[in-house]
Amino acid sequence: MDAEQLRECGHKMVDFIADYYKTIETIPVLSQVEVAHLLNFIFFSFFFTLVVAECAILCFTDVSLSHFLVFCLIADVKAKILPGVTHWQSPNYFAYYPSNSSIAGFLGEMLSAGVNIVGFSWITSPAATELEMIVLDWLGKMLKLPEDFLSSGNHLDVRLGSNSCDKVLQRIWYYVLGQGGGVIQGTASEAVLVVLLAARDKVLGRVGKNSLEKLVVYASDQTHSALQKACQKNGIWFHVDAAYAGSACICPEYRHYLDGVEEADSFNMNAHKWLLTNFDCSALWVKVRVFPVSISLKLWMVLRLYGLENLQCYIRNHINLAKYFEGLVAGDSRFEVVSPRIFSLVCFRLLPPDDNEDVGNKLNHDLLDAVNSSGRAFISHTVLSGKYILRFAIGAPLTEERHVAAAWKILQDEASALIGVP
Amino acid sequence: MDAEQLRECGHKMVDFIADYYKTIETIPVLSQVEVAHLLNFIFFSFFFTLVVAECAILCFTDVSLSHFLVFCLIADVKAKILPGVTHWQSPNYFAYYPSNSSIAGFLGEMLSAGVNIVGFSWITSPAATELEMIVLDWLGKMLKLPEDFLSSGNHLDVRLGSNSCDKVLQRIWYYVLGQGGGVIQGTASEAVLVVLLAARDKVLGRVGKNSLEKLVVYASDQTHSALQKACQKNGIWFHVDAAYAGSACICPEYRHYLDGVEEADSFNMNAHKWLLTNFDCSALWVKVRVFPVSISLKLWMVLRLYGLENLQCYIRNHINLAKYFEGLVAGDSRFEVVSPRIFSLVCFRLLPPDDNEDVGNKLNHDLLDAVNSSGRAFISHTVLSGKYILRFAIGAPLTEERHVAAAWKILQDEASALIGVP
Repeated sequence: MDAEQLRECGHKMVDFIADYYKTIETIPVLSQVEVAHLLNFIFFSFFFTLVVAECAILCFTDVSLSHFLVFCLIADVKAKILPGVTHWQSPNYFAYYPSNSSIAGFLGEMLSAGVNIVGFSWITSPAATELEMIVLDWLGKMLKLPEDFLSSGNHLDVRLGSNSCDKVLQRIWYYVLGQGGGVIQGTASEAVLVVLLAARDKVLGRVGKNSLEKLVVYASDQTHSALQKACQKNGIWFHVDAAYAGSACICPEYRHYLDGVEEADSFNMNAHKWLLTNFDCSALWVKVRVFPVSISLKLWMVLRLYGLENLQCYIRNHINLAKYFEGLVAGDSRFEVVSPRIFSLVCFRLLPPDDNEDVGNKLNHDLLDAVNSSGRAFISHTVLSGKYILRFAIGAPLTEERHVAAAWKILQDEASALIGVP
Repeated sequence: MDAEQLRECGHKMVDFIADYYKTIETIPVLSQVEVAHLLNFIFFSFFFTLVVAECAILCFTDVSLSHFLVFCLIADVKAKILPGVTHWQSPNYFAYYPSNSSIAGFLGEMLSAGVNIVGFSWITSPAATELEMIVLDWLGKMLKLPEDFLSSGNHLDVRLGSNSCDKVLQRIWYYVLGQGGGVIQGTASEAVLVVLLAARDKVLGRVGKNSLEKLVVYASDQTHSALQKACQKNGIWFHVDAAYAGSACICPEYRHYLDGVEEADSFNMNAHKWLLTNFDCSALWVKVRVFPVSISLKLWMVLRLYGLENLQCYIRNHINLAKYFEGLVAGDSRFEVVSPRIFSLVCFRLLPPDDNEDVGNKLNHDLLDAVNSSGRAFISHTVLSGKYILRFAIGAPLTEERHVAAAWKILQDEASALIGVP
């Protein structure tokens, strides 16, 4: 960890990444490599590494050698790794869901990695625990979560577990504090797992340890009605997962999608999806505290550097682009929008000829393949009630109207090649 | 994501981190702040963020303004966050266990965050899946794991799950391939969870789904004997967790601690503990493949930039420093080494006066407090059979003999203040 070596290598890597963003628009968004692209690089082997290491060991702390090694490393990244990368940050990325970083997220991740902050208990880095409480309170307020999801005022006992093992700390946070607050998990799935364990312990504590097999988990994809029903059931732990759309609820005009969250025991959304914080950063709020495990620096950077209004603009811009795309689809009689667009995801398809769904599915599959293999746009699909549906998800930080228009042009052209002009 | 903004801010952050390493030795290793240090910063509030955001929105893409914002941000980090950080990278850090980064780990994390690589299925970034297989094969070979833990030759079907949801991919990797390989998990606990689920599915597949409550999990802290017994039990899934000490087994002279691993169904070690790869990076190998989820870039950087011999030197150096410390303790009649040192952890204590264990526990607790509150070294403790034991764990990349000697001097001086000179 020689400081000057770190400085030199770090600057080189920053330049590489900045240059990457200068050309990102011209790179095929979907990786064009064949299977085993990397695996087939003979020289990309451990033995090559050993040869380089042999050189390195001769003069390991010398800055010029580290310069040379980083030069080789970046050359490897360019030649071998980048061709195998699918560019989620590309403005031509419209697949799956957004999962994006930003300058602030990048700086936060750098700082975490550079200082190597470890936060498994208060004493292992007091700032990690406290910043997580502060930042998740900020985000909770941006989402207008009820007060009992916030940590404010609940912080006096945070050092109870100091210098003890993390299991003790978990128990203290969990059982002693018993108050609300936010914690960062890796993903929404991890958040659900944590919540399931908390719910299980809560219920078993009441009905007895031997009743495990009597517990039932209800899940629904119709969140809004589930919310109504769940509120009328006693004795359940009610969790709301707003992994993707949660970010939109920082805008007052979309906040009503969270109406009823005050009845929930826990709520989560992924800041790493649509809130400019790079993976992973899933925010979980509970009315009964679970435990802090993660590092909030990158989320702090995002909120601190951009602030509420800029983040609201960011979300609204994507939703407006999705509206624009929806209009384009609706204006072409060969296509249909298959479900109402709410946020920035448009589900659509080519209409099946003669109502033949099998032919329609094949057509839409071929259209997806043609668009994606062009490398000029990347969209994904889903299957709903046997129908092959195309998904156009807008959320990359660099996407502008011209990228959406260009992607639509590709879709139209490929559709014409498949079934002719309208 | 303006490229020039990113370049300027990134360079500033690199300089901040490099400067941090120039002074790290002079900073108190254990954070000296009181509880609620950050929480009590009034101006560290969301509303302040909003004011800054108001400025920012006026001219959001202007490089000079972004310069100003990053200047403010770094000033905040220095004034408010760093005092609340416990410095795991400090050469005076001897607590818990090592959990360290390196220049290579830092560069890998930067690259992952900068390019924002998402790797939940092959198509979402082919290089992520393939690099993970390659790098864990390298590390597996460094550890001389049996062939059936390696991916080599098993890669032909990796794209079966392309463009499908990750659950489908998991199933494909899990059930169709059914071959060995390495995957990266976040922590050893996550690795154990994945392995438990895999074991449960394997056993329930044989004995029927309704036998869940008949399953038993055995755990032992006497790994070596457990290994012998487990090999003689049929029908169990046998997992070996070498989270900390696994790194040492890249040295031939310590590899024998893994003898018998060929009988295991799964094995894991944390590269983020003692192998210079920043948190999180827990390597898990299984004979029946589970699924790839993580990003191996930082581990690749570490192996690629340092190579086997340098990493072996790194491990041996720490173990030699621990031997040196053990010798120092043994040479002072007031202390005892309480359990045999194997790797780089020395467990020791002040001998209890008149064999009074209660007084001894209080003494060792007071000694720990005195050393840690000095800010000049940070050690941790454990309780074994009612005895309060001090743990001196060596593993920070910057630790040299002089830091160990200085820490021992502090321990001796504080001991003299408590019970007098020998």
